[in-house]
Amino acid sequence: MNYPLGIKKEKHQLINYSHRGMTLEDDINESNLYYREHDIAYIYKKPTPIKVTKVHFNNQKQATIKEAFFLEPSTTDYNGIYQGKYIDFEAKETKNKTSFPLANIHPHQIKHLENITRHGGIGFLIVRFSLNNLTFLLTAEDFLNYIKKEKRKSISLTYFQEKGYLIEEALSPRLKYLDIIKRILEVS
Amino acid sequence: MNYPLGIKKEKHQLINYSHRGMTLEDDINESNLYYREHDIAYIYKKPTPIKVTKVHFNNQKQATIKEAFFLEPSTTDYNGIYQGKYIDFEAKETKNKTSFPLANIHPHQIKHLENITRHGGIGFLIVRFSLNNLTFLLTAEDFLNYIKKEKRKSISLTYFQEKGYLIEEALSPRLKYLDIIKRILEVS
Repeated sequence: MNYPLGIKKEKHQLINYSHRGMTLEDDINESNLYYREHDIAYIYKKPTPIKVTKVHFNNQKQATIKEAFFLEPSTTDYNGIYQGKYIDFEAKETKNKTSFPLANIHPHQIKHLENITRHGGIGFLIVRFSLNNLTFLLTAEDFLNYIKKEKRKSISLTYFQEKGYLIEEALSPRLKYLDIIKRILEVS
Repeated sequence: MNYPLGIKKEKHQLINYSHRGMTLEDDINESNLYYREHDIAYIYKKPTPIKVTKVHFNNQKQATIKEAFFLEPSTTDYNGIYQGKYIDFEAKETKNKTSFPLANIHPHQIKHLENITRHGGIGFLIVRFSLNNLTFLLTAEDFLNYIKKEKRKSISLTYFQEKGYLIEEALSPRLKYLDIIKRILEVS
């Protein structure tokens, strides 16, 4: 890469520093908190579904779970409201440098994104190629089109670069993904 | 009560029979499933938030949670999409026959309903007076107005009868609460 002004590189390093050890989930949660605190959008991560099988009651108010199991989520992880619109998305990161394996998205999550968009919601994926330090937003429409047309088990980085939107990273919010949704809503 | 046609009483008994042992949560989950299966709305209950502190890995794919704690939810329990609108509500039942204690709704849930409605979402409460066998939908607007004006720690059954909407109970879906939302959307 070429850094004609030098400053760009510095900014980039600063961002990397702030991201040290941060997962995509951390970044999205921080961004959603920023959006809530600035009264921009109310988007939350759904809790991980868990089946509780044994509980010990310490007293009338407190209970400790002694045995439980993780369940497969039936929907996407994030949903909420932005500009009066229903927002719904799934976020995944991959260490693969050239493509995103579709095994990361469960079939019922794909079906869920189909349902949401058919009913007028704004559905999308946020996919991070961790080793390339690239995070994309891919609309549910483009994601579903790809799945229908291509019979491959992964989506190439090239497809994200062609159809997806590179999400700008900053200090706060870390991932300005709603800037992209704003632009999409303006032209639609 | 007067049953001029007899048949009305029979229907009522049938409904009661089908509801035996059913909680409000069961009824709402069944109704949401009905709405999904009929492609009417996609509304889900959020999983209960749990903080996992000890996990045992049985193998690479399976894990058993050995210690965990229930957390207080930061939002309402149910959300989703209906007629392109963001839907968000909390459901509670009370054994009190004359009023609904406000202690049932956490302050951050009230704030959440405020945020949602300010941003154009459809927020409401579903409250069941179990012993009276009455289930009401109260819009977030009427709920928030009540809280602002009245300094009481409960909402009287009378207020629900005046401002709320009695939810029709049936076999399937058990609670036709979206019929009410439909009517509200039609007049707004």
